[in-house]
Amino acid sequence: MTGSIRSAVWRQLDPRARASGLSPTNQVLACLIVLSVGLAVLETEPTLSHLTNDLRLLELGLGAVFAVEYLARLWAAPEGADGSARARLRFAFSPAGLADLTAVVSAFLPMAAPGLLLRMVRLLRLFRLAKLGRMSRAWSDIATAINDRREALALSFGLALVAILIAATALYLVEGQVQPEAFGSIPRSAWWAVATLTTIGYGDAYPVTAPGRLIGGVAALASIGLVALPAGILAAAFSDAMKRNRGSNSLPPE
Amino acid sequence: MTGSIRSAVWRQLDPRARASGLSPTNQVLACLIVLSVGLAVLETEPTLSHLTNDLRLLELGLGAVFAVEYLARLWAAPEGADGSARARLRFAFSPAGLADLTAVVSAFLPMAAPGLLLRMVRLLRLFRLAKLGRMSRAWSDIATAINDRREALALSFGLALVAILIAATALYLVEGQVQPEAFGSIPRSAWWAVATLTTIGYGDAYPVTAPGRLIGGVAALASIGLVALPAGILAAAFSDAMKRNRGSNSLPPE
Amino acid sequence: MTGSIRSAVWRQLDPRARASGLSPTNQVLACLIVLSVGLAVLETEPTLSHLTNDLRLLELGLGAVFAVEYLARLWAAPEGADGSARARLRFAFSPAGLADLTAVVSAFLPMAAPGLLLRMVRLLRLFRLAKLGRMSRAWSDIATAINDRREALALSFGLALVAILIAATALYLVEGQVQPEAFGSIPRSAWWAVATLTTIGYGDAYPVTAPGRLIGGVAALASIGLVALPAGILAAAFSDAMKRNRGSNSLPPE
Amino acid sequence: MTGSIRSAVWRQLDPRARASGLSPTNQVLACLIVLSVGLAVLETEPTLSHLTNDLRLLELGLGAVFAVEYLARLWAAPEGADGSARARLRFAFSPAGLADLTAVVSAFLPMAAPGLLLRMVRLLRLFRLAKLGRMSRAWSDIATAINDRREALALSFGLALVAILIAATALYLVEGQVQPEAFGSIPRSAWWAVATLTTIGYGDAYPVTAPGRLIGGVAALASIGLVALPAGILAAAFSDAMKRNRGSNSLPPE
Repeated sequence: MTGSIRSAVWRQLDPRARASGLSPTNQVLACLIVLSVGLAVLETEPTLSHLTNDLRLLELGLGAVFAVEYLARLWAAPEGADGSARARLRFAFSPAGLADLTAVVSAFLPMAAPGLLLRMVRLLRLFRLAKLGRMSRAWSDIATAINDRREALALSFGLALVAILIAATALYLVEGQVQPEAFGSIPRSAWWAVATLTTIGYGDAYPVTAPGRLIGGVAALASIGLVALPAGILAAAFSDAMKRNRGSNSLPPE
Repeated sequence: MTGSIRSAVWRQLDPRARASGLSPTNQVLACLIVLSVGLAVLETEPTLSHLTNDLRLLELGLGAVFAVEYLARLWAAPEGADGSARARLRFAFSPAGLADLTAVVSAFLPMAAPGLLLRMVRLLRLFRLAKLGRMSRAWSDIATAINDRREALALSFGLALVAILIAATALYLVEGQVQPEAFGSIPRSAWWAVATLTTIGYGDAYPVTAPGRLIGGVAALASIGLVALPAGILAAAFSDAMKRNRGSNSLPPE
Repeated sequence: MTGSIRSAVWRQLDPRARASGLSPTNQVLACLIVLSVGLAVLETEPTLSHLTNDLRLLELGLGAVFAVEYLARLWAAPEGADGSARARLRFAFSPAGLADLTAVVSAFLPMAAPGLLLRMVRLLRLFRLAKLGRMSRAWSDIATAINDRREALALSFGLALVAILIAATALYLVEGQVQPEAFGSIPRSAWWAVATLTTIGYGDAYPVTAPGRLIGGVAALASIGLVALPAGILAAAFSDAMKRNRGSNSLPPE
Repeated sequence: MTGSIRSAVWRQLDPRARASGLSPTNQVLACLIVLSVGLAVLETEPTLSHLTNDLRLLELGLGAVFAVEYLARLWAAPEGADGSARARLRFAFSPAGLADLTAVVSAFLPMAAPGLLLRMVRLLRLFRLAKLGRMSRAWSDIATAINDRREALALSFGLALVAILIAATALYLVEGQVQPEAFGSIPRSAWWAVATLTTIGYGDAYPVTAPGRLIGGVAALASIGLVALPAGILAAAFSDAMKRNRGSNSLPPE
């Protein structure tokens, strides 16, 4: 009898118990996680400080729900494993279990105290997003695609860093004297180079002399390649990962 | 006799009646739809207020054309279905029929009155663009590609939101005291984080301290991946959707 | 004898006469075209007005070279066709022939006169770039890829326009009263929407209210999709075009 | 005995001696290279000038390590070739050998002298990054993908240049009189055109008149294609390069 209740609880809580989709309980929990992160974000806004007490109450309520969820997961943990009580210990020290515990604890730590440390304690609540991770199944596609080409992606990332270093050094040599605030050293130039080569372009720093603009134009054109390179690598990797998945479903293993 | 006229009208109005391309009537209607949306957009410009009366007249003329089109579609609707009069009711309450009706009604609602509500009533005319939707056949390719990978795309969208949250929180902690206006809370920081991670970079907010710029540079480099990820997923999905379309045309089903 | 000289001239001038690469004559001509366009660009810079006479002389020299090239192409034209003299007429009125004639004529039109019309006459020289078009063979790959998916690309372009219209209308409704200069009408808002959805982000206009920034953030995230969609379509199209090219080279036609 | 030591040294230093990964010695050297480049970058920052003496000492230490590495590579060079002493000469004059020598020499050139020339001598240390090149094996994938489509990539780069020229000329004609500082000549307009078509958008120059913004909007939309084109070409090339690699590993050559 207890076993069948425990089994039902486990089927509600563990996404692996379903072939696809989320159980009603997990759907509600996902919404509460997003809500609680949204509240933690809003609480930092000084113009909403008159809501602090309401947010505090809501936060305690959410903490209570997460506490019940944590205890239920701990109690039902043996269902997903070999059935022994050691499964509870394993869950308690798994990343998922620790994330669940943090989600509970961060609700009940003092939240009214000032200072940077306590601000960071309050921000622990943002880690609740990690609880969402277990609920999606598309991770494996993306992880496979990235992992298959991790060396090519790392190399294209390295090329981006080298391009940033070259562009920053060139502008430092050419405009370091003209705009010492923006280009007076390579680290300062690098801020411009990063903003340019990633095509962000804040506009707080840009070359003004003719040779500087020539170099800037070359860097701008290079930025197209820097974006296209990882996009192309990932596109081919997804295409490949998908084909292998389909192959392994319908064909005998090679 | 009436039947053959109705059939000819239907063949002129319904894009499904042709293997490819648009009938002359639909080509003219597509131009009028674009023209009427353009007029509705221009009418909001205060420096063109001396044209209001001309635009009003033109709008009434366009409304009359759309009224005739709506009645013709309603009359010819049985041709596209089982031929019974119920097909007219079905068309009248279909999304396409309601879009056509809105296109007519929005032309004859009073347009000279001031106020936000009436401004929005006038903007109903922008919904005429929805009438264009039925005229293109490439929807299915794009819809298939997006639908096939909706979970991976949703996840890459979720990763973008998490990256925005992390970047915003980091800048809030590092520069919240230095630039309270731009980074004094996570929602404020999020405006900078969105502009940076989507590579827009308005330049109204940017880090100024060394640690802030270091975090900003990491966020800038991460933006390359955030753009490359959905591009790669969609590229593989289009490639796959196309291959299946070709396969289903020329090969026996697997 | 004249025939063999004419044949040698034709082989030097017509890129189709070689399996790959460019003849020495065409390599020199390509450099001169780029040089002459560069000079036409530099001539517009007021701070270089002391060089006008030198640039004028150089321009006349380049015009003489292009005149010789034009006459040689006209004379050798029958080699590339059926050998009859009518081939010269056909070349003279072909787009390539007209581009060559314009390149010559634009050098000898008066260049010192002021005024907008003559400025535009001088800019005719920029059309010399069209002469470069015939020299590349990669056009067909790109043209095939774009042509294969022209409807999907047009639709993704149409979706971009609709997204711009929606974003512009939303900001006009939300911030039209707050920032009338930037968002006081849909055409004005559209300038911001274009800069945002293409991820350019000049920073001359951006929302400042909370609801405006919320809409701006959604538009910013949508911009990732607007860039990823055509990139994905083109990636699949290139992949497909390449496979068919390889297939038609090494396999019997399907 | 000497031979076996030399062989062990060579196996530690030459990445080709291992099927995958880096030897411990090379891992340490890679870290030192990154560290020494980081120091050379930091040294240019005027607000860190109080650290100059410390950085100088650290630099001399790094130079000594690179000197030992250079001599060891020179001594062990015959192991990687036919075993003859001529292999040392070949290494000394290979790009890798010259890069290693530069890395040593740049540490011991006088670094305290002022002036642009000596600043550039100090920047020679940035070339140490070239030493990292030999340590990665993903180069070949990326190089193959780029090389396979070098003509299509060059053409899409050429199209970008033509688009920049057209956009710059159009804005020069339309806004040259209104904003002479930003659009008074084609080279000046080109700075705006580059920033727009690469989607950087610094915001130091942008059209302000209605026709200028219309042209700017068209250029902005064209920028999507300019980024999507090389991304699509590279995606297809990576996909193809990968398939051929896999094909040559597991299948008989076609």
